Amino acid sequence: MTTDPLVVFTPSGKRGHFPVGTPILTAARQLGVDLDSVCGGRGICSKCQISPSYGEFAKHGVTVHADALTEWNSVEERYKSKRGMLDGRRLGCQACVQGDVVIDVPPESQVHKQVVRKRAEAREITMNPSTKLFYVEVQEPDMHEPSGDLERLCTALDQQWELKNVHSDLHILSILQPALRKGEWKVTVAVNLGDKNTAPRIMHIWPGYYDGTIYGLAVDLGSTTIAAHLCDLQSGEVVASSGIMNPQIRYGEDLMSRVSYSMMNKGGAAEMTRAVREGMNALFTQITDDAGIDKGLIVDAVFVCNPVMHHLFLGIDPFELGQAPFALATSNALSLRAVDLDLTIHPAARVYLLPCIAGHVGADAAAVALSEAPDKSKELLLVVDVGTNAEILLGNTEKVLACSSPTGPAFEGAQISSGQRAAPGAIEHVTIDPVTKDPRFQVIGSDLWSDEAGFDAAIATTGITGICGSGIIEMVAEMRMAGLLDGPGLIGSAAQTGTERCFLDGRTYSYMVWDGSADGGPKITVTNRDIREIQMAKAALYSGARLLMDKFGVDKVDRIVLAGAFGAHISPKHAMVLGMIPDAPLDKVTSAGNAAGTGARIALLNTDARAEIEETVRNIHKIETAIEPRFQEHFVNASNIPNAVEPFPILRSIVTLPEINFNSGEGGAAGSGRRTRRRG
Amino acid sequence: MTTDPLVVFTPSGKRGHFPVGTPILTAARQLGVDLDSVCGGRGICSKCQISPSYGEFAKHGVTVHADALTEWNSVEERYKSKRGMLDGRRLGCQACVQGDVVIDVPPESQVHKQVVRKRAEAREITMNPSTKLFYVEVQEPDMHEPSGDLERLCTALDQQWELKNVHSDLHILSILQPALRKGEWKVTVAVNLGDKNTAPRIMHIWPGYYDGTIYGLAVDLGSTTIAAHLCDLQSGEVVASSGIMNPQIRYGEDLMSRVSYSMMNKGGAAEMTRAVREGMNALFTQITDDAGIDKGLIVDAVFVCNPVMHHLFLGIDPFELGQAPFALATSNALSLRAVDLDLTIHPAARVYLLPCIAGHVGADAAAVALSEAPDKSKELLLVVDVGTNAEILLGNTEKVLACSSPTGPAFEGAQISSGQRAAPGAIEHVTIDPVTKDPRFQVIGSDLWSDEAGFDAAIATTGITGICGSGIIEMVAEMRMAGLLDGPGLIGSAAQTGTERCFLDGRTYSYMVWDGSADGGPKITVTNRDIREIQMAKAALYSGARLLMDKFGVDKVDRIVLAGAFGAHISPKHAMVLGMIPDAPLDKVTSAGNAAGTGARIALLNTDARAEIEETVRNIHKIETAIEPRFQEHFVNASNIPNAVEPFPILRSIVTLPEINFNSGEGGAAGSGRRTRRRG
Repeated sequence: MTTDPLVVFTPSGKRGHFPVGTPILTAARQLGVDLDSVCGGRGICSKCQISPSYGEFAKHGVTVHADALTEWNSVEERYKSKRGMLDGRRLGCQACVQGDVVIDVPPESQVHKQVVRKRAEAREITMNPSTKLFYVEVQEPDMHEPSGDLERLCTALDQQWELKNVHSDLHILSILQPALRKGEWKVTVAVNLGDKNTAPRIMHIWPGYYDGTIYGLAVDLGSTTIAAHLCDLQSGEVVASSGIMNPQIRYGEDLMSRVSYSMMNKGGAAEMTRAVREGMNALFTQITDDAGIDKGLIVDAVFVCNPVMHHLFLGIDPFELGQAPFALATSNALSLRAVDLDLTIHPAARVYLLPCIAGHVGADAAAVALSEAPDKSKELLLVVDVGTNAEILLGNTEKVLACSSPTGPAFEGAQISSGQRAAPGAIEHVTIDPVTKDPRFQVIGSDLWSDEAGFDAAIATTGITGICGSGIIEMVAEMRMAGLLDGPGLIGSAAQTGTERCFLDGRTYSYMVWDGSADGGPKITVTNRDIREIQMAKAALYSGARLLMDKFGVDKVDRIVLAGAFGAHISPKHAMVLGMIPDAPLDKVTSAGNAAGTGARIALLNTDARAEIEETVRNIHKIETAIEPRFQEHFVNASNIPNAVEPFPILRSIVTLPEINFNSGEGGAAGSGRRTRRRG
Repeated sequence: MTTDPLVVFTPSGKRGHFPVGTPILTAARQLGVDLDSVCGGRGICSKCQISPSYGEFAKHGVTVHADALTEWNSVEERYKSKRGMLDGRRLGCQACVQGDVVIDVPPESQVHKQVVRKRAEAREITMNPSTKLFYVEVQEPDMHEPSGDLERLCTALDQQWELKNVHSDLHILSILQPALRKGEWKVTVAVNLGDKNTAPRIMHIWPGYYDGTIYGLAVDLGSTTIAAHLCDLQSGEVVASSGIMNPQIRYGEDLMSRVSYSMMNKGGAAEMTRAVREGMNALFTQITDDAGIDKGLIVDAVFVCNPVMHHLFLGIDPFELGQAPFALATSNALSLRAVDLDLTIHPAARVYLLPCIAGHVGADAAAVALSEAPDKSKELLLVVDVGTNAEILLGNTEKVLACSSPTGPAFEGAQISSGQRAAPGAIEHVTIDPVTKDPRFQVIGSDLWSDEAGFDAAIATTGITGICGSGIIEMVAEMRMAGLLDGPGLIGSAAQTGTERCFLDGRTYSYMVWDGSADGGPKITVTNRDIREIQMAKAALYSGARLLMDKFGVDKVDRIVLAGAFGAHISPKHAMVLGMIPDAPLDKVTSAGNAAGTGARIALLNTDARAEIEETVRNIHKIETAIEPRFQEHFVNASNIPNAVEPFPILRSIVTLPEINFNSGEGGAAGSGRRTRRRG
């Protein structure tokens, strides 16, 4: 018995003996090695590039001689001269086994490659998109054996790619016959591979070999903005990102006002559905124009959004979400056709919406769960996505709990006297000198601090216009640390604080941050009412987290992730001084940026992640804060800065919080902060 | 061990012992007896009516006493007084077992009931529609266990009806929440039960118990007319039938001219697609108006059509069907959504198109195969669907062959000098006196023969306008039997035939049928050119049948079915005198009427028939006449009346065909009839 040459693949380590003359691509396929090919080994697509290694490989027990593969051939030469190819690379379909050989499959030749992510702690994305390209040679029609062109195409897909039971949309039938004839019975087919519930489906067909790629969209449909990433479904690369304001803003700034609009206006929900879909199409035009690609090449899209946006996007009246028991029309993940949502991408494009967790914890929260994966964390992980509602996840590999908490819009700068959206001119970072009680700050649009030379010139065009959400958090925390604010939340008088910046403003005191009135600019102050708004918002957030900790049976967490665009700008220290989040080591509090958008991208690039998050969401324990007495209790207790009950030992080891109490009875502002907040 | 009472169901004969107190509906379900129920035994729908029988039943070995069932109860009384119920009937969900009992399930209480058909030899239709109604009670939302309304509805369908993995269309989501609340969490749901490839799907939802029915359409989309039957999907009844002209007529009378139109005009195919879909919607409006029902209650539709209409309806350019190798874009059966075909029936309605057999043998031929079932026939059955193309099926339980033959439009009265469509005023039946050579005839619109008293008055409003397709067949056959026409197809002179009705008309003779010119009416004649057209049409038809017989290895068939509207009007004797169809006993030649439309109705009412015909079509041997040398051979030989080669012993035992030959060399009309016919 002679032994066939040994072929060892790296990095997989898969190995096997193959007869002399076996193409490397064939060997890879037989071993189940992840080596890409669109043309099926016909030397057209060059996706199967591999790197043979020569020499002695003790690790693999093999010596590779220079003649281990057949010689460089004309197909490889033609490809290299036309398109270029790295030195040392071969085409797996052309290079054939001659002797023992070690073959490296570079990442770009792997179908299921890893997509690079910036954050160290972020989970990997393994490429496994819904739709892939397949080059096939189709049998010509024969009057002796009449059969449809589609049926012969499907036979070719089965025989050449083992794709069984392939379906097609109606529109494929209208482009099929010209494509087959123009390509002389050779075509490239984009096939959505389906899942356990759906058969594979032909999405598009190109004559001959299609040398391009196909795209997908990951869309984060927020109440305020709609953001989309356009991704290459072969490489996984984000080729363009873009965002627009949600056109529904004209029907109400926050979700509750949109729900009200639909209740008060017949056809209001339909109007808002139309608006958001039109906006979406405008965004898609913008993003494809930016990338210079045809919108018709977008064959898949994943959407994440909160429940109200979810319903309005789908054309469901959000009425039920405006009142207890906050019943969703549907909570499961949805696989839909883009045309049914009036989206003008590829006519056969599919759309996937992640599942909603509960009536207030939407597909966006599910996307955060997919991106941050508390269910895969050994550490007990608290994930907080701060918005008008905060969605909170707490869990580890054992279990995951979720709730939403009605923080209100204060964290977004709304209902704050000098509050504003995060835009040039807004104060975003602050420190207050504990001695002089004077603030210094940074404004969006400039890196200079307000006490640095050149600051005035740097902000000349924008001015100083207000305080954004993350700015107000730092402001309040700094006021507390500087002794301008007591634990229960009262601003002291000039006498109590020792600075004239504290002035009587109605029945309570305010703190003057910046007086631009001499130059016709605004007076930027923090009022005690602002403090109350922030107290309630942070109390809601903290109470939600605390409630989940109670349910989990713990009184501390190992790690905290702040998600959301806003979360990305929060200073962990200030958030903790404020008592927004539980006590934790500062290096264990990180920002995940737009985790919902990332979750959408994961579900777009890896369809296995869809089944995974559906399963995860089914297993998440949903806690409804509205019916939990403990939530109200925590809320009352949590209004102090930081809250009066919790010890916060880690925090207190880092910062000094002056022991002061301004409640001398001179003002009427003191209170428990107990107030029922409306949802929205 | 005591023995529980015995319950015997008729007509199924299923039997079992059940504890005292078991409702009859429950017993039926456990035994798999086909007893309908929409409300699931809640005494609402009354679909489960049964007839208990009393007395001694030796056959079943049981004696049924008067107290075998619980007493007539208030639910039954209320139903009977409100809606009426036959005496002796009980509600299966109310009447409970007390002793041994024999229960008859009347046909109207069976889900899978037989639909009555008029023709004795016709196959039965067993009801098994795509979509059925289910009444369910849905759990209310609970903040402690948040889940979507749709998910709770699906749970109810699973628990109460064992419907697993139910999907829903997007539009259901928009009507779901109000329906559940209006019905106080009780709703009736129409569910399309799907098949091996597709999951069950919610089609519609009504608050509470929906006391109506749902409908389906069986549509025969012909080149000339579109005909539809509106069927009750619960009873199987045809509640309305209607037809319109195919609006594509303005782009060409026959199929080939429509194919040409699309080749000559950019966007021509799309224009014709739009036209036929608009026509379809107009027809559906008409038929639902006739029936007085809402178009939105139509949840299923089945279409049959020839390949060109198939492609134009689907929006596929029929270009390839106009030239060899006549490649269909797709030949498989198609399950589509009505909205994708721009049909304005229920927004979630499904559409099924039967498979095409080959490039010239369409879904209409498949429907004929389904209706006439040659594959289930022990006798060798020839089925001929006569139109511009004749589709021909030959087979028995052993195998089935199919071909199409280009008969041209002569059988429809086109290209015949006095030909016309079948309409009032057209001659449809003729006899010619073999002695006087004078014709007598009947005209569409009157039952009187032309030599009967009152004929002139009867036709006063219509006049006599021409000869329709079936009339011309009788006319030519009668001319042959009366000795006016010889075997090769020449009309004799006045001297040869002995009647002045035969007159020189150009280079050949014509026969004067009716001279209305004195009253300003037409002269209705049969020219020798008309004879040639009919010879070619009948030769094509006969040759197709003969070719299939060759392939089958037989020289006679047991039974012949003439399908199609035209087939319904053909006189078998005259067709055989003409040599259109093979020799067969006259009582074995029957008409099936619109068998294609019937096939559509079968596939609509019984989804099992869809899988069945798909399998049948896969197994049909397709013969392409265009590439069969034997077809041309048969065609040449078949032009004589009857053809010169075949013996036709049965025919010659019935009729006398004069041995004459008018080819005296005086005219140039004699010929073989050899001419290539274009497809269309």
